[in-house]
Amino acid sequence: LRLGLPEVIYAAGKTPEQVAEIFARMAHAGGDVIATRASIAAWDAVKQMVPQAEYHTDARIIGLRQTDALADAGPVAVLCAGTSDIPVAEEAAVTATYLGVKVERVYDVGVAGLHRLLAQRETLKEARAVIVCAGMEGALPSVVGGLVAAPVIAVPTSVGYGAAFGGLTALLGMLNSCAPNVAVVNIDNGFGAAYVAAMMLRSMHAPSASELLRASQSS
Amino acid sequence: LRLGLPEVIYAAGKTPEQVAEIFARMAHAGGDVIATRASIAAWDAVKQMVPQAEYHTDARIIGLRQTDALADAGPVAVLCAGTSDIPVAEEAAVTATYLGVKVERVYDVGVAGLHRLLAQRETLKEARAVIVCAGMEGALPSVVGGLVAAPVIAVPTSVGYGAAFGGLTALLGMLNSCAPNVAVVNIDNGFGAAYVAAMMLRSMHAPSASELLRASQSS
Amino acid sequence: LRLGLPEVIYAAGKTPEQVAEIFARMAHAGGDVIATRASIAAWDAVKQMVPQAEYHTDARIIGLRQTDALADAGPVAVLCAGTSDIPVAEEAAVTATYLGVKVERVYDVGVAGLHRLLAQRETLKEARAVIVCAGMEGALPSVVGGLVAAPVIAVPTSVGYGAAFGGLTALLGMLNSCAPNVAVVNIDNGFGAAYVAAMMLRSMHAPSASELLRASQSS
Amino acid sequence: LRLGLPEVIYAAGKTPEQVAEIFARMAHAGGDVIATRASIAAWDAVKQMVPQAEYHTDARIIGLRQTDALADAGPVAVLCAGTSDIPVAEEAAVTATYLGVKVERVYDVGVAGLHRLLAQRETLKEARAVIVCAGMEGALPSVVGGLVAAPVIAVPTSVGYGAAFGGLTALLGMLNSCAPNVAVVNIDNGFGAAYVAAMMLRSMHAPSASELLRASQSS
Amino acid sequence: LRLGLPEVIYAAGKTPEQVAEIFARMAHAGGDVIATRASIAAWDAVKQMVPQAEYHTDARIIGLRQTDALADAGPVAVLCAGTSDIPVAEEAAVTATYLGVKVERVYDVGVAGLHRLLAQRETLKEARAVIVCAGMEGALPSVVGGLVAAPVIAVPTSVGYGAAFGGLTALLGMLNSCAPNVAVVNIDNGFGAAYVAAMMLRSMHAPSASELLRASQSS
Amino acid sequence: LRLGLPEVIYAAGKTPEQVAEIFARMAHAGGDVIATRASIAAWDAVKQMVPQAEYHTDARIIGLRQTDALADAGPVAVLCAGTSDIPVAEEAAVTATYLGVKVERVYDVGVAGLHRLLAQRETLKEARAVIVCAGMEGALPSVVGGLVAAPVIAVPTSVGYGAAFGGLTALLGMLNSCAPNVAVVNIDNGFGAAYVAAMMLRSMHAPSASELLRASQSS
Amino acid sequence: LRLGLPEVIYAAGKTPEQVAEIFARMAHAGGDVIATRASIAAWDAVKQMVPQAEYHTDARIIGLRQTDALADAGPVAVLCAGTSDIPVAEEAAVTATYLGVKVERVYDVGVAGLHRLLAQRETLKEARAVIVCAGMEGALPSVVGGLVAAPVIAVPTSVGYGAAFGGLTALLGMLNSCAPNVAVVNIDNGFGAAYVAAMMLRSMHAPSASELLRASQSS
Amino acid sequence: LRLGLPEVIYAAGKTPEQVAEIFARMAHAGGDVIATRASIAAWDAVKQMVPQAEYHTDARIIGLRQTDALADAGPVAVLCAGTSDIPVAEEAAVTATYLGVKVERVYDVGVAGLHRLLAQRETLKEARAVIVCAGMEGALPSVVGGLVAAPVIAVPTSVGYGAAFGGLTALLGMLNSCAPNVAVVNIDNGFGAAYVAAMMLRSMHAPSASELLRASQSS
Ligand SMILES: Nc1ncnc2c1ncn2[C@@H]1O[C@H](COP(=O)(O)O)[C@@H](O)[C@H]1O
Ligand SMILES: Nc1ncnc2c1ncn2[C@@H]1O[C@H](COP(=O)(O)O)[C@@H](O)[C@H]1O
Ligand SMILES: Nc1ncnc2c1ncn2[C@@H]1O[C@H](COP(=O)(O)O)[C@@H](O)[C@H]1O
Ligand SMILES: Nc1ncnc2c1ncn2[C@@H]1O[C@H](COP(=O)(O)O)[C@@H](O)[C@H]1O
Ligand SMILES: [Mg+2]
Ligand SMILES: [Mg+2]
Ligand SMILES: [Mg+2]
Ligand SMILES: [Mg+2]
Ligand SMILES: [Mg+2]
Ligand SMILES: [Mg+2]
Ligand SMILES: [Mg+2]
Ligand SMILES: [Mg+2]
Repeated sequence: LRLGLPEVIYAAGKTPEQVAEIFARMAHAGGDVIATRASIAAWDAVKQMVPQAEYHTDARIIGLRQTDALADAGPVAVLCAGTSDIPVAEEAAVTATYLGVKVERVYDVGVAGLHRLLAQRETLKEARAVIVCAGMEGALPSVVGGLVAAPVIAVPTSVGYGAAFGGLTALLGMLNSCAPNVAVVNIDNGFGAAYVAAMMLRSMHAPSASELLRASQSS
Repeated sequence: LRLGLPEVIYAAGKTPEQVAEIFARMAHAGGDVIATRASIAAWDAVKQMVPQAEYHTDARIIGLRQTDALADAGPVAVLCAGTSDIPVAEEAAVTATYLGVKVERVYDVGVAGLHRLLAQRETLKEARAVIVCAGMEGALPSVVGGLVAAPVIAVPTSVGYGAAFGGLTALLGMLNSCAPNVAVVNIDNGFGAAYVAAMMLRSMHAPSASELLRASQSS
Repeated sequence: LRLGLPEVIYAAGKTPEQVAEIFARMAHAGGDVIATRASIAAWDAVKQMVPQAEYHTDARIIGLRQTDALADAGPVAVLCAGTSDIPVAEEAAVTATYLGVKVERVYDVGVAGLHRLLAQRETLKEARAVIVCAGMEGALPSVVGGLVAAPVIAVPTSVGYGAAFGGLTALLGMLNSCAPNVAVVNIDNGFGAAYVAAMMLRSMHAPSASELLRASQSS
Repeated sequence: LRLGLPEVIYAAGKTPEQVAEIFARMAHAGGDVIATRASIAAWDAVKQMVPQAEYHTDARIIGLRQTDALADAGPVAVLCAGTSDIPVAEEAAVTATYLGVKVERVYDVGVAGLHRLLAQRETLKEARAVIVCAGMEGALPSVVGGLVAAPVIAVPTSVGYGAAFGGLTALLGMLNSCAPNVAVVNIDNGFGAAYVAAMMLRSMHAPSASELLRASQSS
Repeated sequence: LRLGLPEVIYAAGKTPEQVAEIFARMAHAGGDVIATRASIAAWDAVKQMVPQAEYHTDARIIGLRQTDALADAGPVAVLCAGTSDIPVAEEAAVTATYLGVKVERVYDVGVAGLHRLLAQRETLKEARAVIVCAGMEGALPSVVGGLVAAPVIAVPTSVGYGAAFGGLTALLGMLNSCAPNVAVVNIDNGFGAAYVAAMMLRSMHAPSASELLRASQSS
Repeated sequence: LRLGLPEVIYAAGKTPEQVAEIFARMAHAGGDVIATRASIAAWDAVKQMVPQAEYHTDARIIGLRQTDALADAGPVAVLCAGTSDIPVAEEAAVTATYLGVKVERVYDVGVAGLHRLLAQRETLKEARAVIVCAGMEGALPSVVGGLVAAPVIAVPTSVGYGAAFGGLTALLGMLNSCAPNVAVVNIDNGFGAAYVAAMMLRSMHAPSASELLRASQSS
Repeated sequence: LRLGLPEVIYAAGKTPEQVAEIFARMAHAGGDVIATRASIAAWDAVKQMVPQAEYHTDARIIGLRQTDALADAGPVAVLCAGTSDIPVAEEAAVTATYLGVKVERVYDVGVAGLHRLLAQRETLKEARAVIVCAGMEGALPSVVGGLVAAPVIAVPTSVGYGAAFGGLTALLGMLNSCAPNVAVVNIDNGFGAAYVAAMMLRSMHAPSASELLRASQSS
Repeated sequence: LRLGLPEVIYAAGKTPEQVAEIFARMAHAGGDVIATRASIAAWDAVKQMVPQAEYHTDARIIGLRQTDALADAGPVAVLCAGTSDIPVAEEAAVTATYLGVKVERVYDVGVAGLHRLLAQRETLKEARAVIVCAGMEGALPSVVGGLVAAPVIAVPTSVGYGAAFGGLTALLGMLNSCAPNVAVVNIDNGFGAAYVAAMMLRSMHAPSASELLRASQSS
């Protein structure tokens, strides 16, 4: 197993020039690089300096692959409830890919139309971990939690209006999930969900420090 | 159609003696009477003065039937997510019965165990309205909303701990339901949900004032 | 009775092009279509592709009637407290109409000028359901609830400033209505209120699944 | 005009002995004395030491009249929405009386039963100021504000459950009143409302400092 | 005593054209007119149609005096804590003037510089009512409440940042004032404070309905 | 690998008799059983009926081992910041053990005394997942997150007073962790944290459905 | 200068036996010891084991002086607004004394009675730091901040009711103080305020590490 | 020791012209002047009128040194957790410098990368007071509080998204610090933190009023 950990730039609140300058410097170091929350303007600046970088529009991620890291851990299923949640789901999916994780996207499977979700039951069952992005009432993780025997990482999104309170309602709902296999990250934090999932896969598969020690001692 | 409207006493914050005294006075007037949020102590006081009254333990309702009102409107399905939600569901179900509504109880059908809910799909389809009681993340109304072509009256319950905030999380979740056929009443307000459902049945079926007028004119 | 259920597009957060493209595709399928929260720009894009569509300016709804659905269910009264609540009330009224419901508008009847509301008492009495839109303290549903024997669907609006908190105050007020026949939808959710009202009418009048079964068996 | 200002003890959080000791000391000074939020236990302690004191059970006020202050200012109308609001209304009414204000009580006139309120319209019109106590949605001050040409002092009460949040909902509603003649005091603060009303009567009628000066100079 | 009550337009959320059109129509009726929360753009539109109107820049009020109402009730002192609170204080002061109330402005007297406030003690003592505008911690009304024997109407302002929460902190502080003669209106609601003050003056001085009756009967 | 999943009873809100009755019934079925949030009274009732059960006092868990499940997955490190957090940490640790997970306890390692935490660095490095329980400001997960290359499951506790708001402050802090490998469960939800960790171990190690399929096909 | 730092036990949530056992163990080590938030029951248990300990009733602190530490740093003035704030003020004052700080108590100087505060101006001017405890609107620190040229440590107390929200209102008010020399600790945290003040005195007076180094090098 | 107190202008909410006009007037008086929260536009206006002023870009402070005040008190360490917190840290650092305090900047030492912080331990130990700026979970002050024997002034920043709630989460975290030597100022209030620190240094070192008196008497 190989789980690559690229350098990560959080582009929000940085000028396009700042993002490009940091990106180029990191790219120069030879590893993989991603910038999350990157605007088109940031992308325009980066591609001038690092032509081989790519822009994932929905995910708002600029990425650069320079290592031969294979996305062979997983798979992790990334779900979202509605089409408005796709940017957050894509932030998770693209981040996970750069972290070396194989991703299955299962989008637009909100709980008010159960048949669409149930039709994907097999994909869910295959997943080693499930990332579930939902706004409004944030009910999807509870339903998914009941369908799988894997950890569910829930990402509340800021989708909704009125008493959605910018994602707070979804966040609270997910924290109170009646499914016991659900843990939660910050509102819109697709990046964090992917990171936690990757850590799970890496931590499970990698030999631990003491195993390495014992291995080295026995050789 | 006959939808009885009993006199209603809100027993919370009243002494057993006050409840009994009001109950007896109303009983004397000859109609049906119910007292909600009634403690055992209140029930002890009432049954001294009105021996023919009944106590619905789970619902915490003291009731008295004196009219020949038949529960023939409906049916209304009353659902709850977990066993801890049963007192609220019973408050709704018993109130509805006293309001002349036929009730179908569908309990302990939380969304993390979908199969139990889906097994009741036929009962749901029969219902003219559905009352859904749930605490914690309050996700059940959204799922139910997608399964029926009837109005869903959602009752958040104060079941849960920590970030459940005494029902606030369930309340917010229900208000943001992605199912469009969901309306919400106050936390733990099983009574109100039943009342809205009964009003709906009464209002839909009863001839309107102008229909009565036209009828009288044409005769 | 005929209650049409058009296809519904939630235009907020979609580009004019996306709205137009989806609208045209749905129109092509032959049924009725509405897009809510539609900006003028979205309307400009839609009318290029679907010239027979209409724009309801106050309601911010683009609609297309292609079926012969008659607005003969109801009537449902749609009230609002102040002129600033009219966009939400119109969202409810126009949606209801597309759902086949006859609507009576009773606008600008805030509780601080009771005479205006009381002058409309007859219209209220006729209604099978009442939708009440109000911002600020959101008191209107309670007063209306006491005047009618029909279900009241309350819509808090984001009208107000300071401690109105974008509709939260009105929402909380409506959830705590001292009138028992009040249920509530999300802030500014005129669409949802109309949908619940239409579901009530449809559910009450349509034969249930088992009635259809019995009818088919007896024939 | 004569507006007496008694000494005031806030008995909450004080032991019965402390209340009695302070009360006796103040009584000794010869003026009027009241203790608000006084439990029966406090009353038992006070009456041992100051036999001529009185206890107003609903208002939870212990009072002592030692001056010849006449309650001839006003009248001020004290309203409450439901019977559960009576303790707060009585705190206002009894306080006002000890402050020399004539009080008209208009209780149990909630907005969901408008006829009861409208039946008291004449009493309201007579009032120089109106104190309105209400819990739950707190809608009564807005309706009353529209019926009178006097200042309305609104007192939110902690009556209600669930999303009433201990009076917060009523408080927010009153602060957002669509009637412009409404000002608000703290939750359950009947004492404060009476005090503001008395200050108003005193301030409006008493000659101002400069009038006194001019009067003395001209004499 | 003469307390004029002008027609009032709440200009926020209305287009300049709407404001101008309503203003002109009301002006035509012959009475006094004011529009609060009026932008420069609204003022430009109004003055085209009603050249004799005036704009009070700080108060953001467009006013028109057409009656001979004299500002001879009062005086009411209008205070503010900092210079950023002046727009709200001016909304109160200008409104009060149009309501026939004499106003004394005492600005920039925040509690962290007590000497400035104490230097105005005489002006405060003269006032029949005091309006106090303050943002941030909103402490000024408590201090002023202890210095005067008149009602204090507190106006929290949205001045501040961080944990000022748009005026919520000041609002809560004012509601919990340790001075008993303080009542509160909505955040930034200078208009409402002036209205309540004017109602106090009007209500105190005007003969009541029954006094008028007795007067007419005795004549 | 073998990860046992016992039957779980949530004892809060159930009477001792109810807990004992459910526990005995489940024990009868032959598997492992645990009851969380179990009071001493519940334990007294259970041990009458199921003498071979055990009570974990700090964890408030009643457990019964009837299978030969070995706690050989993991290890999972369970940390807590202060001694008051121990009950929550124990709920996590004991639950994990019953779920077949090997647990390393690292208690009383709050961030204001870093040396104690840093002394445990080796234990942390060994862990496949880390559960971190902390109240008050909830800072521990961020520090731990930076020390390990494993997923951190953060459990806010209700320890603290004043602005700790019953665990809300710790919850919000953990959701905003600057360490990207942190996910969060509900306040005081040690059970849920252990469940997520166990699911992770189980999901990562078990062959997936398709692997099983391929294995069976190739054999 | 000598600033003693006693061992500190936080007794809340510990049984009397636990407090006594820890206290005795620490006393045995020979230094000073205090236990904050100690109930009478805890005191009863401690004095059995450590007879020379003392109980400060209002402060709820059990203390033991075993060193010759002199309270000669400071002075620090400890203020409180009302008599109900005294327990918190005493927690600060007694803690400060055990930390070697000389304390001046200035109690019951709420801002609605300025003369009492202004009468203590000289005492305030002498203080090297000022600790200000206040509940309700928490306005006192702002006024005091304007009177002194020393740092003000503000302690919000949970005194008040209704919209005081258990000290939240006072906390928010203090954080938004218009006086720039104010910093804030947690609600009711008299201990923390004293600790910060003592740290300040100790830090300012003690030679710094590099000064010690230079001193040792030059000798 | 010499601690200069410049005149301070809060530029937020003032036009560039207003800032420049006030700045020039104060500069004319001969002392030091600073304007905080000053935009580039304000700086452009000021430098026209006061050419010798300086602009500190990151701190958004315009400053003018006209006295010979030396920054010789302290040192005070100014820390921040992430690069996004630098503007707030700079507001503190630059303010402190103008107040005559020597500043040590220790930036980008967030708790998820402890080694960077621990590498600065010596600098921290030298500091007489420590100002710690952090957003998101605001954990840094607790860690720093445990490393130093000096007062820590914590500044929550509005850095973060989602459940960071504009700095509220960091604020709450800091108020609940498990380190007892932490006090807190408003969100983003770098200015206030520097002011409190300077007051500490000034108050500790300056002779008190009575010391001055005694000195004068003995001479
Ligand atoms: N979308 C995101 N949400 C939260 N944290 C992020 C996100 N993207 C990147 N990060 C974190 O931000 C760090 C980089 O921050 P910076 O050095 O300011 O660019 C990374 O190491 C990540 O831990
Ligand atoms: N019910 C009440 N609510 C709020 N403040 C009150 C109340 N009753 C008395 N007070 C105030 O409390 C002061 C007396 O407080 P104390 O000296 O603690 O007894 C009086 O002067 C009143 O201003
Ligand atoms: N401490 C706990 N916190 C949250 N959920 C729990 C806890 N203990 C048990 N549960 C859940 O509650 C369910 C049992 O609930 P019940 O049937 O009411 O006993 C279990 O399946 C768990 O998912
Ligand atoms: N009243 C108090 N409020 C907040 N923290 C306190 C208080 N009293 C003691 N502490 C802190 O609690 C620690 C002792 O906690 P413990 O080990 O649980 O007894 C001390 O080192 C103090 O930092
Ligand atoms: Mg869970
Ligand atoms: Mg809906
Ligand atoms: Mg209701
Ligand atoms: Mg008003
Ligand atoms: Mg008051
Ligand atoms: Mg994270
Ligand atoms: Mg400050
Ligand atoms: Mg502290």
